[in-house]
Amino acid sequence: MERMIAPQKLKELEIGIFQSLGILPDNANTLADCLTQADLWGISSHGAIRVPIYAKRIKEGLTDISSEPEVIEDHPSSAVINGKNAIGPVAAEKAMHIAVEKAKNTGIACVALGNTNHFGTCGRYSALALEDNMIGFASVNTTPLIAAFGGTRKAIGNNPFSIAIPASRHFPIILDMACGPAQGKIELLQKQGKRVPDGWAVDADGYPTDDPQKALHGVLLPIAGPKGSGLAISVDILCGILSHAGIGAEIGHLNDSRPQNLGAFFAAIDISKFVSVDRFLERVDGYIDYVKGTGREGEKILMPGEISFIEAEKRTKEGIPLPSVLIDELNELAAKSGISTRI
Amino acid sequence: MERMIAPQKLKELEIGIFQSLGILPDNANTLADCLTQADLWGISSHGAIRVPIYAKRIKEGLTDISSEPEVIEDHPSSAVINGKNAIGPVAAEKAMHIAVEKAKNTGIACVALGNTNHFGTCGRYSALALEDNMIGFASVNTTPLIAAFGGTRKAIGNNPFSIAIPASRHFPIILDMACGPAQGKIELLQKQGKRVPDGWAVDADGYPTDDPQKALHGVLLPIAGPKGSGLAISVDILCGILSHAGIGAEIGHLNDSRPQNLGAFFAAIDISKFVSVDRFLERVDGYIDYVKGTGREGEKILMPGEISFIEAEKRTKEGIPLPSVLIDELNELAAKSGISTRI
Repeated sequence: MERMIAPQKLKELEIGIFQSLGILPDNANTLADCLTQADLWGISSHGAIRVPIYAKRIKEGLTDISSEPEVIEDHPSSAVINGKNAIGPVAAEKAMHIAVEKAKNTGIACVALGNTNHFGTCGRYSALALEDNMIGFASVNTTPLIAAFGGTRKAIGNNPFSIAIPASRHFPIILDMACGPAQGKIELLQKQGKRVPDGWAVDADGYPTDDPQKALHGVLLPIAGPKGSGLAISVDILCGILSHAGIGAEIGHLNDSRPQNLGAFFAAIDISKFVSVDRFLERVDGYIDYVKGTGREGEKILMPGEISFIEAEKRTKEGIPLPSVLIDELNELAAKSGISTRI
Repeated sequence: MERMIAPQKLKELEIGIFQSLGILPDNANTLADCLTQADLWGISSHGAIRVPIYAKRIKEGLTDISSEPEVIEDHPSSAVINGKNAIGPVAAEKAMHIAVEKAKNTGIACVALGNTNHFGTCGRYSALALEDNMIGFASVNTTPLIAAFGGTRKAIGNNPFSIAIPASRHFPIILDMACGPAQGKIELLQKQGKRVPDGWAVDADGYPTDDPQKALHGVLLPIAGPKGSGLAISVDILCGILSHAGIGAEIGHLNDSRPQNLGAFFAAIDISKFVSVDRFLERVDGYIDYVKGTGREGEKILMPGEISFIEAEKRTKEGIPLPSVLIDELNELAAKSGISTRI
């Protein structure tokens, strides 16, 4: 059972809940915008469903809503920020903005953000670079969720990262990927009665399995074996070690009763320092046309992120489908928070 | 049939052949070192086997051995180089060196190199950053070799890229990966009488196949579907459009009778601008210990690039195994070049 909720109404409710927790209006708006954007993009796992856990962590003091992220290393094209365990999306947005501003002067710039919290989708931050005609990169490390290649125990995060590239006639390209298979995809295979593809998972005893049930109780393997494993390891080091944050098992899970101490890494490339922006956009558009023309008749080729832009157009008009259980939970949270908005 | 060839002897032969073609001694040395390094690392596909095609392209004037790559855009942390169709590894090394030098001043820097040629392994260039305690990145686009996700025709290159991260007690981490499955791996499956895993290839008619023979005559698919496809697309744009080079089908194959007009993209991150180098190395070493400890008893977990370092130690002592056919071809080329060295 689900109902369609108007995005603006949902965001209003979320802002209300967050403000009632003592979050400053600007920060409450950033946090709610982060969640609503994920819901609009169709990435429900990073949307309203996160409100209860974010609220819980704030109430328990596991996220420090009063602290201000601080720049602790500052160079012409790089910076390190101590996130000071502040709200994840607020710190991440600040970090990406600094990368963009520095890139305007130098060509490329990056910011490592440590001691921070879950910040939603990586695509949100890489996409911030698009407004300034830049290519954006955002990544974050997570608690161990997948095995390393050659191993069969949870060892490294699925460490997602995103690359955003502007286009003109077409939607921008936004690649946003994790280094392990999506758990949701395996749950879907289970519902459909299908088998798990080779190399996706091992069972609880560490043996390869194509049974979705056993895979979900076992360990997911990195995508493409050594490739996904190598990517996840690289992201862990970029995000965790450059930023003075945790890596591997040092990172706290959202459900753990300790600060997460995640690390994140952001970069921006100022296109105008390489080629005229007009020429760049014209060539990206032409390339997208070219790639889309390489399918067989009737085959539709979608570019990275295109499905989210299409979904966002639809959901902006028709609303965001939310499970009734979640709607009840959010309304209850609103009631307890003493705010009058309901969805 | 194969014989073991001493690396130094092989390099000497290659230098002789290249110099006889009119290549300046420094450049001939760079080119031969690039090929020998690949052979030492066990990446035979990028080693001595390339000498005949490199020589052929030079003789036919498809690579311009007399031109000098030129910086056409220069900013504090970025540059664009017109490779002027010069020797690929020479131009690439220059580009990576500029990225490293700029990063020393700014924190991170990148260089886009256009109008260039095949340059060997990406790992060679990312690894150059290690000497200065930096993290290195190198990537290049190629002629269309794989389908885009959703398509069944060759559309995009398998666009390899590499990330190099220094360690202290352990070998450095060098991830060097393409966005499609290795053709060599499918040839191996064929020899072993095994099936091709789901999602690796379609046959010549565009239908999924698990038959290695049909896969080799069909089209390889990007790794992990939309993920590998999105990575290949991103690398194509970074390498081809930022550098004013070709993308997609605009790029010439090594066997085509036209300049390749490849693009490449290099970046370097100066670790000392983020965290003390000692602390960084200590944490990377600890992380490698941690990851290696997550296997079951008897399971050996290798880090990205480790297999190449082990192979290089072995081959430095025991020699590089080369097929007799290739040895004959190289000796014949040497004889025709009027040099006395033989392997």
